[in-house]
Amino acid sequence: MQHTITTLVENRPGVLARVAGLFSRRGFNIESLAVSITEDPSVSRMTIVVTGDERSLEQISKQLNKLIEVIKVYDYTDVPNVERELALIKVHAEPTRRAEIMQITDIFRAKIIDLSERTLTIEVTGPVAKVDAMRSLLEPYGIKELVRTGKIVLARGARSAAEMRSNV
Amino acid sequence: MQHTITTLVENRPGVLARVAGLFSRRGFNIESLAVSITEDPSVSRMTIVVTGDERSLEQISKQLNKLIEVIKVYDYTDVPNVERELALIKVHAEPTRRAEIMQITDIFRAKIIDLSERTLTIEVTGPVAKVDAMRSLLEPYGIKELVRTGKIVLARGARSAAEMRSNV
Repeated sequence: MQHTITTLVENRPGVLARVAGLFSRRGFNIESLAVSITEDPSVSRMTIVVTGDERSLEQISKQLNKLIEVIKVYDYTDVPNVERELALIKVHAEPTRRAEIMQITDIFRAKIIDLSERTLTIEVTGPVAKVDAMRSLLEPYGIKELVRTGKIVLARGARSAAEMRSNV
Repeated sequence: MQHTITTLVENRPGVLARVAGLFSRRGFNIESLAVSITEDPSVSRMTIVVTGDERSLEQISKQLNKLIEVIKVYDYTDVPNVERELALIKVHAEPTRRAEIMQITDIFRAKIIDLSERTLTIEVTGPVAKVDAMRSLLEPYGIKELVRTGKIVLARGARSAAEMRSNV
């Protein structure tokens, strides 16, 4: 099963390597990861998407919680949340195909942010499934390059992760 | 100096831990990191933002290039590029303050994606500096929770990272 785990950690060298090491030692492949600073610059937030069985994930969460730099581990999988991802897609677009691609871009409320004689670069933001759908629709034109941020997530409602009761 | 480095790697367990380990062993703190799959599902793409002196970064790049799972390392710092970041910001918003926050959201072409009696959650996408500016403007209201994806980047024009001549 796929899980979306948020880890709040102290913003220090080495923390990312330790967290990534915990997952790799158990053979988990991290599907996506987004790490950046938070509302408190001394704290970084990692959003980790990983697939695995419940038991192994539970053990990883326990080990994460034991790391001194880890402030909180929270699993958003079963919590009402808003998820978003951003992608930049460079797609083959001869001038005669541009109009079609611009239609797709409009329908997805995406944006064209760069243009060359043979390519368009598109910015799309939305739930992961929307980014996947956009990608599928652009594939027939030839995707030249694709970069995605990985999923980020916040709980619906007023509470922050720091205020939520630990669920892992 | 701040650098934005893209690393194309084989999509396998353990690669992230090795890459993160290289940076941490030299005492570099990764400021942001986004990792996800690419147009080729067997390849992951890491966008790493890191500050450090040229000499140490050059050594890290050389060591990255030696890792068997690393396909390409490319430094976008001096290359014309499009950069984007996505953030979700949960901000304190009593009903009487909502209108003001909605104005800021409109001006930044951001979106309100969740609402509670006391908070609003805003999605904002743009260059890193735009996300920083939005954050500063919302700070007086009280930022309750903030998650950012970290920067992602593509070169302007038709070429992909795989086609570009190595610059590190």
